[in-house]
Amino acid sequence: MSNQHDRARQFHELHHRKRLLVLPNAWDVPSARVFEDSGFPAVATSSAGMLVSLGFPDGESIGRKEFVNATERIVRVVSIPVSADIVAGFGRTPGAVATTARGIIATGAVGVNLEDLDGESGRLFPIQAQVKKIQALQTLAESLGIPFVVNARTDAFRHGPGGERARFQEAIRRGIAYRDAGADCLYPMGLVDPESIGEFVRSVEWPTNVMIRPGVPSIRELERLGVARLSFGPSASYAVMGLLKRASKALLQDGNFDALVDGAITFDELNALAVPKRIRRARSK
Amino acid sequence: MSNQHDRARQFHELHHRKRLLVLPNAWDVPSARVFEDSGFPAVATSSAGMLVSLGFPDGESIGRKEFVNATERIVRVVSIPVSADIVAGFGRTPGAVATTARGIIATGAVGVNLEDLDGESGRLFPIQAQVKKIQALQTLAESLGIPFVVNARTDAFRHGPGGERARFQEAIRRGIAYRDAGADCLYPMGLVDPESIGEFVRSVEWPTNVMIRPGVPSIRELERLGVARLSFGPSASYAVMGLLKRASKALLQDGNFDALVDGAITFDELNALAVPKRIRRARSK
Repeated sequence: MSNQHDRARQFHELHHRKRLLVLPNAWDVPSARVFEDSGFPAVATSSAGMLVSLGFPDGESIGRKEFVNATERIVRVVSIPVSADIVAGFGRTPGAVATTARGIIATGAVGVNLEDLDGESGRLFPIQAQVKKIQALQTLAESLGIPFVVNARTDAFRHGPGGERARFQEAIRRGIAYRDAGADCLYPMGLVDPESIGEFVRSVEWPTNVMIRPGVPSIRELERLGVARLSFGPSASYAVMGLLKRASKALLQDGNFDALVDGAITFDELNALAVPKRIRRARSK
Repeated sequence: MSNQHDRARQFHELHHRKRLLVLPNAWDVPSARVFEDSGFPAVATSSAGMLVSLGFPDGESIGRKEFVNATERIVRVVSIPVSADIVAGFGRTPGAVATTARGIIATGAVGVNLEDLDGESGRLFPIQAQVKKIQALQTLAESLGIPFVVNARTDAFRHGPGGERARFQEAIRRGIAYRDAGADCLYPMGLVDPESIGEFVRSVEWPTNVMIRPGVPSIRELERLGVARLSFGPSASYAVMGLLKRASKALLQDGNFDALVDGAITFDELNALAVPKRIRRARSK
């Protein structure tokens, strides 16, 4: 447990440095291991990437147990801190959300993403209901003695009521409420332009997560705006499927398979991604 | 069952056309669905790609049940014929191999790859032992009434005894024996140069599978040599992990995330890959 405690502290500190934390989201074992090998200081899971890889649309379409198992496969093979996207917590009550988080933290993960969109109705959960869930996660962290990082996502800017400005203000209002409830990082989904991102960060005065997507400011600009964390979201899955589409088209239309061969890793390299780096090192001695 | 029978026949026929069958190997649900959407007439699974994605090194390191489940996830979401790589059959006896194949065919798959390398010893199984396993698969196909395609792989050229010529001759000897035992296609692992591929095909006079790898002849050349099937093997996994490595390096060294955004698919496109195409079509009506 002390090891996990240290990883949780380590992950926490990565949100309070001058440099932006770039956090890659993996969806399976080898994607997580490539990110670790590449030198990222931590790795997250992407719910969309992971669920689609298993044949479930994004959301809580998968059973909690199978979801926790998929997260565990990733946590088991990497040594760096892992943060798990738990969608809206697989349950409507603070107790149900805490139960999901307990299962996730038991895998060795040291962070969770919790969103405030009700996948069933397509509307936001009431702000107070979400606050209670975040408080329940803090209570869990204290009872476990593992200060795991809670990244509280709000979909207010995309799914809240009213016009664009009203939805933006609601995202800030929720950000502040989630911060006060104990969230360690805030994740306003859908903000892309530097003005909105900057205004959000100045308003909440708290570590803020932005997702990589077309049009998002450069890393230097995000650092200037005070953003603490830049996550991939499902973008690596989007890129990978884009590559498969291009490779398929080149093969079927032109009989060309260069896209499968150029810049590819080898069998031994792929196989090594199935096992923890520390084991590989020990074995190669 | 009649539907599966038709898909098996359809897959069988793809090995007897003038044009080469290009067969992409998937490792999870969305990779299989992209291949289907792209227009490939059938899809196979890659044992290395699938096992590593779940945290197991290639081979029979995974339990048979979890392996069959992973195959089933893929078969469930595509409408085109699926051929499953079952490594060496997850068992040393013809009966054990047939049990594995029975589980795989019960998922809806209409083909299997069976190799003759003993993963434990690193040596080839005796030719007669392998012949009996192939015969057991034919008996199974008859008893089920599903003429699934058996692609018999030999690792003789890479792992057989003796010098290069002796190993090549052993690959031909095994190819002929496997053909006579009822294999529908032969898969001499490790052949790359056109002379060897051509000599193998002329010697066995039977549908032959070649794998995409650096240096393999062009599709036109392979067709000229009489090759029936060109499979990806794990090459799409190799290419995908290569992309993640490049994207990671660009981000960590230059703060550049173009590789994650350029040519990527969208959230809706990714999500649609979790469900069967036929359901999507029905829903969009």
